[in-house]
Amino acid sequence: MPRFERLLLTGAAGALGTELRRDLAGLARVMRLSDREPVSPAKAGEEVVRCDLADADGMLALTEDVDAVVHMGGVSRENTFANILESNIVGLYNLYEGCRKNGVGRVVFASSNHAIGFYPRTRTIDASVPHRPDSFYGVSKAFGEDLSRYYFDKYGIETVCLRIGSCFPEPVDRRMLATWLSYPDLARLVSRSLLAPQVGHMVVYGMSDNLEKLWDNTMASSLGYVPKDSAETYRERVEAATPVPDPRDPAVRFQGGGFTAAGHFED
Amino acid sequence: MPRFERLLLTGAAGALGTELRRDLAGLARVMRLSDREPVSPAKAGEEVVRCDLADADGMLALTEDVDAVVHMGGVSRENTFANILESNIVGLYNLYEGCRKNGVGRVVFASSNHAIGFYPRTRTIDASVPHRPDSFYGVSKAFGEDLSRYYFDKYGIETVCLRIGSCFPEPVDRRMLATWLSYPDLARLVSRSLLAPQVGHMVVYGMSDNLEKLWDNTMASSLGYVPKDSAETYRERVEAATPVPDPRDPAVRFQGGGFTAAGHFED
Amino acid sequence: MPRFERLLLTGAAGALGTELRRDLAGLARVMRLSDREPVSPAKAGEEVVRCDLADADGMLALTEDVDAVVHMGGVSRENTFANILESNIVGLYNLYEGCRKNGVGRVVFASSNHAIGFYPRTRTIDASVPHRPDSFYGVSKAFGEDLSRYYFDKYGIETVCLRIGSCFPEPVDRRMLATWLSYPDLARLVSRSLLAPQVGHMVVYGMSDNLEKLWDNTMASSLGYVPKDSAETYRERVEAATPVPDPRDPAVRFQGGGFTAAGHFED
Amino acid sequence: MPRFERLLLTGAAGALGTELRRDLAGLARVMRLSDREPVSPAKAGEEVVRCDLADADGMLALTEDVDAVVHMGGVSRENTFANILESNIVGLYNLYEGCRKNGVGRVVFASSNHAIGFYPRTRTIDASVPHRPDSFYGVSKAFGEDLSRYYFDKYGIETVCLRIGSCFPEPVDRRMLATWLSYPDLARLVSRSLLAPQVGHMVVYGMSDNLEKLWDNTMASSLGYVPKDSAETYRERVEAATPVPDPRDPAVRFQGGGFTAAGHFED
Amino acid sequence: MPRFERLLLTGAAGALGTELRRDLAGLARVMRLSDREPVSPAKAGEEVVRCDLADADGMLALTEDVDAVVHMGGVSRENTFANILESNIVGLYNLYEGCRKNGVGRVVFASSNHAIGFYPRTRTIDASVPHRPDSFYGVSKAFGEDLSRYYFDKYGIETVCLRIGSCFPEPVDRRMLATWLSYPDLARLVSRSLLAPQVGHMVVYGMSDNLEKLWDNTMASSLGYVPKDSAETYRERVEAATPVPDPRDPAVRFQGGGFTAAGHFED
Amino acid sequence: MPRFERLLLTGAAGALGTELRRDLAGLARVMRLSDREPVSPAKAGEEVVRCDLADADGMLALTEDVDAVVHMGGVSRENTFANILESNIVGLYNLYEGCRKNGVGRVVFASSNHAIGFYPRTRTIDASVPHRPDSFYGVSKAFGEDLSRYYFDKYGIETVCLRIGSCFPEPVDRRMLATWLSYPDLARLVSRSLLAPQVGHMVVYGMSDNLEKLWDNTMASSLGYVPKDSAETYRERVEAATPVPDPRDPAVRFQGGGFTAAGHFED
Repeated sequence: MPRFERLLLTGAAGALGTELRRDLAGLARVMRLSDREPVSPAKAGEEVVRCDLADADGMLALTEDVDAVVHMGGVSRENTFANILESNIVGLYNLYEGCRKNGVGRVVFASSNHAIGFYPRTRTIDASVPHRPDSFYGVSKAFGEDLSRYYFDKYGIETVCLRIGSCFPEPVDRRMLATWLSYPDLARLVSRSLLAPQVGHMVVYGMSDNLEKLWDNTMASSLGYVPKDSAETYRERVEAATPVPDPRDPAVRFQGGGFTAAGHFED
Repeated sequence: MPRFERLLLTGAAGALGTELRRDLAGLARVMRLSDREPVSPAKAGEEVVRCDLADADGMLALTEDVDAVVHMGGVSRENTFANILESNIVGLYNLYEGCRKNGVGRVVFASSNHAIGFYPRTRTIDASVPHRPDSFYGVSKAFGEDLSRYYFDKYGIETVCLRIGSCFPEPVDRRMLATWLSYPDLARLVSRSLLAPQVGHMVVYGMSDNLEKLWDNTMASSLGYVPKDSAETYRERVEAATPVPDPRDPAVRFQGGGFTAAGHFED
Repeated sequence: MPRFERLLLTGAAGALGTELRRDLAGLARVMRLSDREPVSPAKAGEEVVRCDLADADGMLALTEDVDAVVHMGGVSRENTFANILESNIVGLYNLYEGCRKNGVGRVVFASSNHAIGFYPRTRTIDASVPHRPDSFYGVSKAFGEDLSRYYFDKYGIETVCLRIGSCFPEPVDRRMLATWLSYPDLARLVSRSLLAPQVGHMVVYGMSDNLEKLWDNTMASSLGYVPKDSAETYRERVEAATPVPDPRDPAVRFQGGGFTAAGHFED
Repeated sequence: MPRFERLLLTGAAGALGTELRRDLAGLARVMRLSDREPVSPAKAGEEVVRCDLADADGMLALTEDVDAVVHMGGVSRENTFANILESNIVGLYNLYEGCRKNGVGRVVFASSNHAIGFYPRTRTIDASVPHRPDSFYGVSKAFGEDLSRYYFDKYGIETVCLRIGSCFPEPVDRRMLATWLSYPDLARLVSRSLLAPQVGHMVVYGMSDNLEKLWDNTMASSLGYVPKDSAETYRERVEAATPVPDPRDPAVRFQGGGFTAAGHFED
Repeated sequence: MPRFERLLLTGAAGALGTELRRDLAGLARVMRLSDREPVSPAKAGEEVVRCDLADADGMLALTEDVDAVVHMGGVSRENTFANILESNIVGLYNLYEGCRKNGVGRVVFASSNHAIGFYPRTRTIDASVPHRPDSFYGVSKAFGEDLSRYYFDKYGIETVCLRIGSCFPEPVDRRMLATWLSYPDLARLVSRSLLAPQVGHMVVYGMSDNLEKLWDNTMASSLGYVPKDSAETYRERVEAATPVPDPRDPAVRFQGGGFTAAGHFED
Repeated sequence: MPRFERLLLTGAAGALGTELRRDLAGLARVMRLSDREPVSPAKAGEEVVRCDLADADGMLALTEDVDAVVHMGGVSRENTFANILESNIVGLYNLYEGCRKNGVGRVVFASSNHAIGFYPRTRTIDASVPHRPDSFYGVSKAFGEDLSRYYFDKYGIETVCLRIGSCFPEPVDRRMLATWLSYPDLARLVSRSLLAPQVGHMVVYGMSDNLEKLWDNTMASSLGYVPKDSAETYRERVEAATPVPDPRDPAVRFQGGGFTAAGHFED
């Protein structure tokens, strides 16, 4: 018996959305799938609604009759401020207004390690440190954590903010040996975020059980997320394929990696 | 060769006492078993002494010639203030006075998570946070932690306070998926509390290796307690048998569960 | 125009009660004065009700039609456990039950530095550290802080716990150069505790603006308590009259002073 | 001899801008005054440039040949998300892009206590706690703190974020007895923020030397800001003019006051 | 009546030693003055003993019949490692061995802010942070703090380590507006370190009541040190005489000032 | 393909050096082995250079053409101050000067738990606590941590300080059940310290995966050190062979064990 009547998954056409579409299938009687890009056709127990996050009316309709939201939508890497503004700032406002007006109780929000990317690699941080974004993208994720906190404190809408590390089929550079989140571990993390009896407003780092760790998830231990994969499996392959890092390179010194060294996007 | 000459186990007729009677058997040449209720007859290496915690003279005699005490006695759930006062406050005073006068060196004290039951479920706490009891029972356990601290600071009597979660044969509701302490893990915890080379005055949470965790035992890592069971084994069964929790229900919001929502006992 | 309709002052016959009777006079239309000892006759705007804290029915009547309580009653120094139990444990329960049943909204509770007396003198502590009582008296004050926390968390009754240092007309030994609370500063502290817009459950150290400080009141700065007296005024006189302290003496090493060194009271 | 060649003051037509225009006059050879509303005519040592924060090209021109910026511009109370987005989010981006392109070294940014307005009144917080905004306005100020952190970490532009309490000629309600910042203290704070040898990225609470304090500025003590006024001067007048607060009212329970209780603005 | 029978002051020929010789005069019946440089002749109540810290036998004799030591001796600024080794490392060992063998109970040790000079100027630190020395001199002061901790933990010799900022007649550069310690405040600090009833092993920052502060002395508040002077008195003069600082200059960025930027001394 | 061109291993003739010589063999094209005692003859890929740490010129030559240093040399237990001074203080200075002049980028430094040996056994500490050395040996290791911090902050030479517990073939007393570091885990730890992409200046406790833990390595989790052995394997054997500990014995009370109780070495 599914736990939810209807679950909304945004960003359903993206890489992570595609994984979660499959892995969360059993959790809801109906999975509503949305993206501004085309989503592959609905199967049994699914409904597809194309929608741009920037479209306030569309988002209000999209969140109707929904128990909980898994929000993977929006711009997912550095981009112009204008593009990030539209999807990740205005879009997030539209999503939460929809949730508020439609009485949605819980959101799982894909935040990012880039909200804290300027902490040095040698400092293990937990979820209580002030933001140190490394990009407009990271600034928008910090904004999302703050906006969702507001909607919890004022309206009681629960949110789990997932500060996702590097979510890929496998680690492909040395930084990912510390920051990798496997697809199955992402599914475990989202699943626990949906099912935990109470989450309030919580921030949790999305990482697998890697040996190198930049983040301490103790504060979120009530969630019950325990990763099962590890980047260590891929170490030999990764190290053979990539050059020895220079500890003075900003991309090595800071948790956000290359984002901290890159120039920024002009409109 | 047993580690102790004589060990006193109070509350020996209760559920936890019965478990520990069996599991701690090898630790002492003589296990002295006590309760105000009848205790089943002494076997080899045991002696049974019936005694009410409220009886100061009886407690003085009970603690004679004892190396260490495992104190499971007293009221073990919410009750009238009068009853709790008699067993858990006056009774505890009697026990420690007995220990002081008879030179007992160490006590393992069954405290409870209800001493901190009003912390929100989403906040992982360690043993240094101020008390937030959720019941007269919880207040009496907070009192016990403070009284034993006094006897350590002034008289050097060591105590390990076990803030026991939910100690039952198996978890039977969703809260216990986080708070469960298996019987074998209880025995491990009490055993380490008796055998660790030095404990001073220490507070440790009594929980199994559950995935959902409300408590951080890092501060007590010198004890050497490492649980081996997990509530996760029972998740499916528990979830099938119990309704979906409402995150706004006090029994879900606070660590103490139902104790935080219940009205209180009138005399 | 007085701020309260009726204020209850317990321990009104004691030294601190006598001071507060005079200094708080303007705050309420009626000041109800109570003690188990005789209280000098009521003046205009006063009513005297003799009552023993251990008398549950009496305490229920005493707290009727009261807006707030200043609880200075109870045993105020080390004594037998039995005496402390009766006044400071059972008596406090009676007081809070009275408040709960009569809908009293706020209590100012005379706690004591002896609830944390076993912290070393060289460690500056704030109000978040675990209790380390130095006496049965100190244990009973720790109990009072925990019991009042319970009544706040469960029933919303606000309490300010005043961890009073040494409240005397002037400092008379060297320890008091650090721990002294002048009578006018006591009145300021109680007054702020009654008048602050919200106090929740708060612990604040009761000390004057002494140069030597053992306690950090930053956590309670929303109360608005700012002392105006200082023990320094009396340093010369105190040092001339008292011997040079030995830093190895427990009464010097620990914050609780002589309480930490004294043997304890047998019944 | 003025410390700066040219200082830019935004929001120069507003209440705080008007004060600062006068009080900071001596600090720069030229004070450039800007607002989207008309600013009163330039005097000697001033130049007026009318500009809307939302106008990227205008902001680029506005920040040319400027040594430092005092940014008082933008929406200064709760409003529709659209209005706040335009001035406080897009506008702030425009300002920092201008600073980056024109090599401006330091910004003093008028953030607000509403970035942390949902902390309870009884909890004294410092500048390291996570944001808890109480309004769209507060969310936009949290955004500004994060965006300026990004421009410091990536481009070295220093910012002092002033979490201004209640900046008015005098306190007019009871909350302001804790949160008031006098105009002269504002000028002191901005002045120190401009003159301190190094500020990096710093957050400091903007409050006068009130007795009731919600905020701890120890972390920013290198700034050298020491307020000289106090809301206490006005207590009697304020209390006579305003009703006794109910501690259960959200506007009393939370630091943000009325903002935490108000519904939110629909477009 | 002097508090001590005999007080030893090392470094008595130096600038700070000369000040303290005069200001501490009343504290002891005999003040023993020592230096490896000539000390001006003994007056009534003084005795002069010339001694090099590197001379173990001399130091043993020097510490005989002494109640307490004020240790201002040794190399007091950056120098070759060899010179610092001899005076500040071997010399300090000789001093403490003398104290141990002669039963001296307390030492006031001139440590230095250069033991933590590599903390950034914008971070307010207390005395619990790990050492970050900025010079061989700073390393030797960190060594002294650790060595004295050892002699306290193992032999009970109390030490107050004074992390002196900039102790000069008046502040002469902009950094000193934050780090200045006036001569009278030095005397107050040394005096309290000698007279406080118990100090254990304590670290305290030696600074006057400057508005700009880099250090938080809350942890040492039991000492009773309250400075009365302030660098602010000299601000105008200092700022007129010195160039505007560049926030990117290491001498401005780090607490240790010029020491952090200077190359190091070769033998 | 080896990761380093040339690695220097000091203390190569000692017990730990002998282990590491073998276990690190694959990491460098050439392993340079050094000791003041004779080292067994070089094999393929090795070169042996005999050198005393106290010989500055020798150390300068020794560190030439080296990529990284594993510094196991020096006095490795309590000794006279003179001996420790020569090898662990002057010797360490010589080593770091060599590294600075020859441009060596990283050092792995064998620090010791005796740098913090006077913390009580019941307190779990992390790497941020102030030093509390238990011996001259411990003081010298604290010195080494501070000196290497200086060389990192000023010259960018990275160091991992390994606070090694008890590194022996197997645990031989009860304290080692908590402090044991197996030889293979030592090799893992040194290896990660050499290979981690960035280490800055880091302190990490060198312990195996023992059940009893005195130390919390969370702060160093970016290193990627995960031990695989456990002292628990040896518990039965150790407990059978050693007496029951007395919790009042300093060797039991403090983390440093016997070092804290031992008298100290006279020259």
